[in-house]
Amino acid sequence: MGYSEEPHISGEILQVIDVGLIGYGYWGPNLARNIAESEGVRLTVIADGRPERRDLASRRHPGTTTCADAAEVIADAAVQAVIIATPLKTHHPLAKAALEAGKHVLVEKPLAASYAEASELAEIAARRGVCLMVDHTFVYTGAVRKIRALVETKELGDLLYLDSVRVNLGLFQQDSNVVWDLAAHDLAVMDHLVDARPVAVSADGTALAGYEHENIAYITVHFDNGFLGHFHVNWLAPVKVRTMLIGGSQRMLVYDDMEPSEKVRVYDKGVDFDLKDERAREQILVSYRTGDMYAPKLERREALASVVREFADAIEERRAPLTDGAAGIRVVQLLEAAERSLRAEGRRVRL
Amino acid sequence: MGYSEEPHISGEILQVIDVGLIGYGYWGPNLARNIAESEGVRLTVIADGRPERRDLASRRHPGTTTCADAAEVIADAAVQAVIIATPLKTHHPLAKAALEAGKHVLVEKPLAASYAEASELAEIAARRGVCLMVDHTFVYTGAVRKIRALVETKELGDLLYLDSVRVNLGLFQQDSNVVWDLAAHDLAVMDHLVDARPVAVSADGTALAGYEHENIAYITVHFDNGFLGHFHVNWLAPVKVRTMLIGGSQRMLVYDDMEPSEKVRVYDKGVDFDLKDERAREQILVSYRTGDMYAPKLERREALASVVREFADAIEERRAPLTDGAAGIRVVQLLEAAERSLRAEGRRVRL
Amino acid sequence: MGYSEEPHISGEILQVIDVGLIGYGYWGPNLARNIAESEGVRLTVIADGRPERRDLASRRHPGTTTCADAAEVIADAAVQAVIIATPLKTHHPLAKAALEAGKHVLVEKPLAASYAEASELAEIAARRGVCLMVDHTFVYTGAVRKIRALVETKELGDLLYLDSVRVNLGLFQQDSNVVWDLAAHDLAVMDHLVDARPVAVSADGTALAGYEHENIAYITVHFDNGFLGHFHVNWLAPVKVRTMLIGGSQRMLVYDDMEPSEKVRVYDKGVDFDLKDERAREQILVSYRTGDMYAPKLERREALASVVREFADAIEERRAPLTDGAAGIRVVQLLEAAERSLRAEGRRVRL
Amino acid sequence: MGYSEEPHISGEILQVIDVGLIGYGYWGPNLARNIAESEGVRLTVIADGRPERRDLASRRHPGTTTCADAAEVIADAAVQAVIIATPLKTHHPLAKAALEAGKHVLVEKPLAASYAEASELAEIAARRGVCLMVDHTFVYTGAVRKIRALVETKELGDLLYLDSVRVNLGLFQQDSNVVWDLAAHDLAVMDHLVDARPVAVSADGTALAGYEHENIAYITVHFDNGFLGHFHVNWLAPVKVRTMLIGGSQRMLVYDDMEPSEKVRVYDKGVDFDLKDERAREQILVSYRTGDMYAPKLERREALASVVREFADAIEERRAPLTDGAAGIRVVQLLEAAERSLRAEGRRVRL
Repeated sequence: MGYSEEPHISGEILQVIDVGLIGYGYWGPNLARNIAESEGVRLTVIADGRPERRDLASRRHPGTTTCADAAEVIADAAVQAVIIATPLKTHHPLAKAALEAGKHVLVEKPLAASYAEASELAEIAARRGVCLMVDHTFVYTGAVRKIRALVETKELGDLLYLDSVRVNLGLFQQDSNVVWDLAAHDLAVMDHLVDARPVAVSADGTALAGYEHENIAYITVHFDNGFLGHFHVNWLAPVKVRTMLIGGSQRMLVYDDMEPSEKVRVYDKGVDFDLKDERAREQILVSYRTGDMYAPKLERREALASVVREFADAIEERRAPLTDGAAGIRVVQLLEAAERSLRAEGRRVRL
Repeated sequence: MGYSEEPHISGEILQVIDVGLIGYGYWGPNLARNIAESEGVRLTVIADGRPERRDLASRRHPGTTTCADAAEVIADAAVQAVIIATPLKTHHPLAKAALEAGKHVLVEKPLAASYAEASELAEIAARRGVCLMVDHTFVYTGAVRKIRALVETKELGDLLYLDSVRVNLGLFQQDSNVVWDLAAHDLAVMDHLVDARPVAVSADGTALAGYEHENIAYITVHFDNGFLGHFHVNWLAPVKVRTMLIGGSQRMLVYDDMEPSEKVRVYDKGVDFDLKDERAREQILVSYRTGDMYAPKLERREALASVVREFADAIEERRAPLTDGAAGIRVVQLLEAAERSLRAEGRRVRL
Repeated sequence: MGYSEEPHISGEILQVIDVGLIGYGYWGPNLARNIAESEGVRLTVIADGRPERRDLASRRHPGTTTCADAAEVIADAAVQAVIIATPLKTHHPLAKAALEAGKHVLVEKPLAASYAEASELAEIAARRGVCLMVDHTFVYTGAVRKIRALVETKELGDLLYLDSVRVNLGLFQQDSNVVWDLAAHDLAVMDHLVDARPVAVSADGTALAGYEHENIAYITVHFDNGFLGHFHVNWLAPVKVRTMLIGGSQRMLVYDDMEPSEKVRVYDKGVDFDLKDERAREQILVSYRTGDMYAPKLERREALASVVREFADAIEERRAPLTDGAAGIRVVQLLEAAERSLRAEGRRVRL
Repeated sequence: MGYSEEPHISGEILQVIDVGLIGYGYWGPNLARNIAESEGVRLTVIADGRPERRDLASRRHPGTTTCADAAEVIADAAVQAVIIATPLKTHHPLAKAALEAGKHVLVEKPLAASYAEASELAEIAARRGVCLMVDHTFVYTGAVRKIRALVETKELGDLLYLDSVRVNLGLFQQDSNVVWDLAAHDLAVMDHLVDARPVAVSADGTALAGYEHENIAYITVHFDNGFLGHFHVNWLAPVKVRTMLIGGSQRMLVYDDMEPSEKVRVYDKGVDFDLKDERAREQILVSYRTGDMYAPKLERREALASVVREFADAIEERRAPLTDGAAGIRVVQLLEAAERSLRAEGRRVRL
């Protein structure tokens, strides 16, 4: 499953990977801090068009060069890997240029602004034999890793639905709506957890309070096996909510990212329907099971540290990262379908 | 706005209203208890087809007659008012018979199984000059009354959206899906709070775990003024959630019915967009306001006691009750539209 | 361990026990309702000096006689068991009279106002061969029963400490302080859970806001095996808190009675000290263990129903009830010691 | 109230204060980060005996010198201010040496290990005309600043009591018990909020699970005006709790530091006792007031940033800082009294 067929010569001394960061706005500083604290990578240069951001970057990372132009980073022969933390519409041109220049590339989520763009990036990465990774941060949290493990061991039984709420007040993105901004996180988590194929997407929402893009939206995703995903994203909510309900045939769980410690709670609850007797349809037997709840211990490492680690390891081991270009494409495909549905009065869009 | 033009002769001694209750299943006992503890009404007879329910009713209400057949209650000349707490599909025939018999009628929500049925009931009530009321219980809670007051005094500004989550494990209804069972509550609350006209409804959902009716569903309601309502109802959730977010242009609130005391929290939060300068669209100014939160004191009276009180008062004062036939019709119309959308892949249904 | 040596003839048809209730104030109605809904007991008569309380009792229990004078209940030959739900200072005279009259007696907590009084009641009950039980309600909750089971199976390891907070606004008792009112509950729970002997009690507190009795108090109980109990009781708190932390050498738990469902949470957390190397005292090794948390399923039956059930069963089976006179005495002894400490500037009182 | 009578010549260009930090263990890195991000101060040198801590400090603060010996920092002529974040028993010798060397000094809480030590430090600072400040961090939080404002505007009425719970699992201090470690925070907050004089302290607790110092303790503080403070500190608790209840004659509040946003909640609740009629003592009228709750908006600045700011400003303006030597002495006096009480079976210690 590696992105390259070249053999990996083990026994070599590990090389430190020189990384260039493009974009030092909201997310860039977090990436920079985690690169700086990771082993095996070195933050060589930070690019940002705004002088005050470069000043801040310099104060915090005295050993790192800064520059105004992303092109400098991409042209820099010393830079082996580029991390892109810029507004969505710039992902594709920047990533494309970097990949074409033979750099390994990690792109902030979502990977690109369209399926076509995302696919092109993956194609270039494959052609150039470099690593393309998307920063689906939540996939790397202790919570989602644990939930994935519960899915794999069938502890939840068959997955039935996922209901996600991600709402708070702002920050409004100027170049996209709340779907591209917030739902990208949750669709990436669903993509990681559910081993089935989404077949249709619908989305409804509106631009409230005079804003030009949707700031509240609801997305529904139907899967080929009947699994149902639903997402509420909202920039106009009075409280910050980060909750997922995941229903399985054996157990159900709540993932509440606002909880300081017990973020994942697994409930031994379920319902059985006894439908055997066809004639007695009226007297369908519904039996409820209510048992213990437990909150598994979660790894506490910062998710972004794991993202940087995975990027470095994938480069080093010449393999595809956990959230590779294909994962990025799948999420962008869902986002694009949601966008189309939003423009079509919430009609279901087939994938 | 009274349902009758007959003058009300004040000064008379108040007559106690004799009430017959049809249905002593899940909700009936709560109604019976509240009738028994209310002044001005007397619980005369309880009808239920199941002997064990009649036994229980007799033990708890030693002074009340029981019978197996609802028709006996309706035919009983001593009974002036009939309360119907039976499965949905029986609402219309029972209420119709009682209204035709000249009884005042209070029906469990939703009022009937279709717009046509609901409208017929209202028409008969008007013709016979009797009171028709629907038990939209939550409208009578201290929380919703307070929220209505906040709406009326414009403390929230213009209402922008309402997002409701009502989920828990079971109880599965045998003759209807989760929309008709759970969403009826929240649509009734929205109907009570929002002074605008709904224009389109869409709904999506599915029957999970092999059940025959939808046990998870999402409903979206668009209003003529841009207001957006959204409802998540679910019988397969591991935890009980009863939360509404209501966004206003001035303030936003959270109504959490699971909170023991501070059920309503009003947040002095908002966003302003400065769009004046047309040329500077790129530099749209978004300013956030984050101020105090407060939780107003709520009336603690049991909602169902207020329902019974309102029914008695409306009969006594020969006026329409707060949740009259018209309110019942409006909610049934939304439910029916949601049902139609569910059957049409979530397509928007115009009202 | 039965209170009587008389053999119990099994196979007989169970007799219904006729119960008289003395006191229909705050707690009496709850007892009356549970007696009325229990099998094997019949609520024959309710005594209360206040006419309006008798009226209310009559309305709610149409088949039950009421009277103004407790002595009537005690003198009533048809009454086999008496339940006393009156102010603390009347517990002893009423219970004494009832026991002397050969009645089985269940007394509201605390059993009596002093160790001497409580002991006398137990002595009379033993002499007359009747059942004496104290209503330590919380001992009968699903939560405390589960915690007791966890203690018995050593799942918590050795018990180390219990920290209890029971605070809210009011209701102020007119004839006693917050210790006798609220702490009685928590001391009874500790008495039930901890298999060691308390050796010293201290208490501090004060009468705030001009009230004549202490309305805030703190109690500390030392046990012979080093176990430490601490209790915060407060009638002047803005929020209702009902929380116990229980620390064990293997696991620790939180019992939060305000939680709607997961009231008991067991944490697989602990600390180990490696003290083996005496010389290396400075380098003591502290290792923390942080594992899963789980919330066991709890029985949901109303505690008071179990209290009435236990009273009836103990009478029927001629055995001591779970919370017998001895348990009542132990709790009163702790309360009395706390009271003495309160009067002595918080000095430790040996038991 | 300045610590020096020398006139402050305004209009001068502000000098940057060169700061040396002694101790880069648990708290030191937080101080270092805040010094580095503050204006008007410069982190010149960091001392720590452990090479791996110096390495970490160097990586994070490339422009700052490190050294192994605190004496170097104190002897460094370029250093004008010294911040001490070392174990408690070293506070006094290090702070004394630094003050004698004419440095301004900020000491981690508690100021010193005894009243005598703390007083000597304050005396030297006064004599040398330099600033002595103690890092009572919580005094600088938005929450405590807001509560102090509510006290000053009499919004709570007269303060009646403060009940504090600060519990969690570990970290165990090797050179002191839980009182000196955790209670120092809460006693400092109480000292800041309450304008009355503490007159007596008692403390009880024990060393559980074989540890050598108390890891659970309860402290009670009586004030001259009847105010009561109580503190539960515990290193062996399964959950992290940081809660204060503060009762006032007009309003009461809850300060929950674990809440992500609404940390302070003010309850319009209270009790009035009508004691006027001496004869009717039995019929004392207790009336409860339950009104709205509100959560005031809090300043979100990191407390430690304000601590560093206050230290720099106090030096610059030649005035006493908010938490000066006198505040440090008062808190140490309470801690010392608590320690004495712990050694005397919880007996009250007069101040």
